[in-house]
Amino acid sequence: MALIVQKFGGTSVGDTQKIINAAKRIVAAKRKGSEIVVVVSAMGKTTDQLIHMAKEITKIPSSREMDMLVSTGEQISAALLAMAIHELGEGAISLTGAQVGITTDSIHTKARILDICPTKISEELNLGKIVIVTGFQGVNLKNDITTLGRGGSDTTAVAIAAALKADLCEIYTDVDGVYTADPRIVKNAKKLNEITHEEMLELASLGAKVLHARSVEFANKYDVPLCVRSSFNNSEGTYIVKEANVMEHPVIRGITTDKSEAKITLIKVPDTPGIAAKLFNKLAEYNVNIDMIIQNVSEQGHTDISFTMHRAEMPRLKNILDELLKTVNAKRYSINENIAKLSVVGIGMRSHSGVAAQMFSSLAKANVNISMISTSEIKISCVINGKDSDKATQVLHEEFQLDKLS
Amino acid sequence: MALIVQKFGGTSVGDTQKIINAAKRIVAAKRKGSEIVVVVSAMGKTTDQLIHMAKEITKIPSSREMDMLVSTGEQISAALLAMAIHELGEGAISLTGAQVGITTDSIHTKARILDICPTKISEELNLGKIVIVTGFQGVNLKNDITTLGRGGSDTTAVAIAAALKADLCEIYTDVDGVYTADPRIVKNAKKLNEITHEEMLELASLGAKVLHARSVEFANKYDVPLCVRSSFNNSEGTYIVKEANVMEHPVIRGITTDKSEAKITLIKVPDTPGIAAKLFNKLAEYNVNIDMIIQNVSEQGHTDISFTMHRAEMPRLKNILDELLKTVNAKRYSINENIAKLSVVGIGMRSHSGVAAQMFSSLAKANVNISMISTSEIKISCVINGKDSDKATQVLHEEFQLDKLS
Repeated sequence: MALIVQKFGGTSVGDTQKIINAAKRIVAAKRKGSEIVVVVSAMGKTTDQLIHMAKEITKIPSSREMDMLVSTGEQISAALLAMAIHELGEGAISLTGAQVGITTDSIHTKARILDICPTKISEELNLGKIVIVTGFQGVNLKNDITTLGRGGSDTTAVAIAAALKADLCEIYTDVDGVYTADPRIVKNAKKLNEITHEEMLELASLGAKVLHARSVEFANKYDVPLCVRSSFNNSEGTYIVKEANVMEHPVIRGITTDKSEAKITLIKVPDTPGIAAKLFNKLAEYNVNIDMIIQNVSEQGHTDISFTMHRAEMPRLKNILDELLKTVNAKRYSINENIAKLSVVGIGMRSHSGVAAQMFSSLAKANVNISMISTSEIKISCVINGKDSDKATQVLHEEFQLDKLS
Repeated sequence: MALIVQKFGGTSVGDTQKIINAAKRIVAAKRKGSEIVVVVSAMGKTTDQLIHMAKEITKIPSSREMDMLVSTGEQISAALLAMAIHELGEGAISLTGAQVGITTDSIHTKARILDICPTKISEELNLGKIVIVTGFQGVNLKNDITTLGRGGSDTTAVAIAAALKADLCEIYTDVDGVYTADPRIVKNAKKLNEITHEEMLELASLGAKVLHARSVEFANKYDVPLCVRSSFNNSEGTYIVKEANVMEHPVIRGITTDKSEAKITLIKVPDTPGIAAKLFNKLAEYNVNIDMIIQNVSEQGHTDISFTMHRAEMPRLKNILDELLKTVNAKRYSINENIAKLSVVGIGMRSHSGVAAQMFSSLAKANVNISMISTSEIKISCVINGKDSDKATQVLHEEFQLDKLS
């Protein structure tokens, strides 16, 4: 009997009617003869509502208590989904991360899974039940509730699939699969049937919200067969596969447009050895996640250091800005919250040179200014002005002929 | 150092501003030099909203999943309260029933506490923290979340006070204390400074919503000093004391008016031995809690059996009504959902005869018809027509001169 892990995201369980629809899909899969484990996110806006209440009480909520608070969202949807499955005549049981034995480290609000004990899930599966697990959460070794950060339910699903050696992990969401670009920006964006783990990883970490990056790492590491598909239709979705399984390698597979970041520049930093290390150690100490980093050429013994980070990290950063300035002896800082990060991704880049040149000259022709660049083996990212981002995405989609892919 | 357990009910933490107010009260008590454990209910309407969602999905939700669902309400308010206390500069930690080690039996939605392990709470108190515990919930031996039924947070508070040998358990609610009658019905109802456990127990079980009955039993059994007071002012409240501590015994201490019940009559039941036992065994089997029972005088080998129950139990009862009729061979049934139960309570009754006669003749003079009667050592209850209940309450309050009490 096949064992399938199905993950339903927040929009797929957004209200009681959608929960009933998800239940129908789950029960249909079970009646086709599979064992089913479901991982569920919080209903639509629940998490945001909970965070809003916390903000009414305090500007900087304790992260332990935030986890206690927001973890209730998945518990609610899991219980309701179990009821909806019962109503359709199948056995089902909802379990929290703690009850399943999902152990994490203690970095509240962005914990990492250390271990999953599959015993409880297996016991309930053996009783013929559909097992529903709250996504996004676990407990640390002190038995405090932890959460894995936004999108962490994907990671829960893949980690459970790995622990149970599942035959497939299906991520149900509100889009049909992975596209060559955001279809709201690029009209002729194409859905991809397959994409490699590495490409998906780059896309995910770049803000293509289809899959959480850590879930892709996990899937790659533990060989979990993974696919992304819509919970609102029966279209096939996109399979995330090993590189070896990909028949042909187009140079570029997709473009992402990320408007969620902000850029901080520390101005007139003395250019002494170890100064950058000091800075980023301090940021790490306060659990501020940064993304791109750029250091200008030194002038008269001083330099500027810029970095980008998710805007959600800004309140935490602002609290320690004065300390940061002191740490590196910077004169002052500037913040730009109106930027966009454009990235092109494809494992084909490895064997094709000149992709960066093609990208930059194409943007230059369209009068788009680039303020930061970062590259990896299979990705090139540019930070540009926020207002140019849609135009630039369309220009690159055309330049790399992504409408010809499938 | 005194150890105080403070319980805040749903109206006392009804929104974020009320949570902040509760936090101020808690912090003030802590800064007066006490160790504080707080037990908290769900915010105002949260539980009802959760139940409403469940009802949208299924008419008869699984009680295990209901517990999974509604237990989130207290987790939310506990986390928010911890944040509000942090904001005031004191250490605080929120803990679920599971984390505290509140073990219950497995009767979901109305579980009973088997044991509380005070270790975790004591550890956190020793660190100087205010410890916030989710009321109303625990886990059974299988680690499934259970709830204690409506009002169960009172029981949690008293049970924790007992386990910790606390010096006082304060129940904060939206009324000043225990009154001789509902002040909304009787204008000159008086607040009582003291009431005995037994009287409070009768009042609680009769629907005076100030305290949950089981919490009073617990307080009596484990000698927990208990008081009820308002979270919205500084009035002294009502202390629930041992009978021995009461200086004088007025005959009647209070009147309750309960409009939450319904009456079911099974008509033309063959009057054979054991028939009532059969009936009530069947009700118990389906966990239907009944209150008053009356069996008419037999006529030609047939009798009628009436009983009352909380209207919330009606959906469950209606599901098994056909089975009930068959079980006792009744001809048919009738349901009256428009009744009121009036009760007078007082330990003084023990040494005063004629209270029942005085009550009945007073009601008769006011043209109030009595359809069922039940008595205990310190209580007399009458079921009357719903429309007469306010008038009857006023009449009895005057008859027993309750406005003279304090």
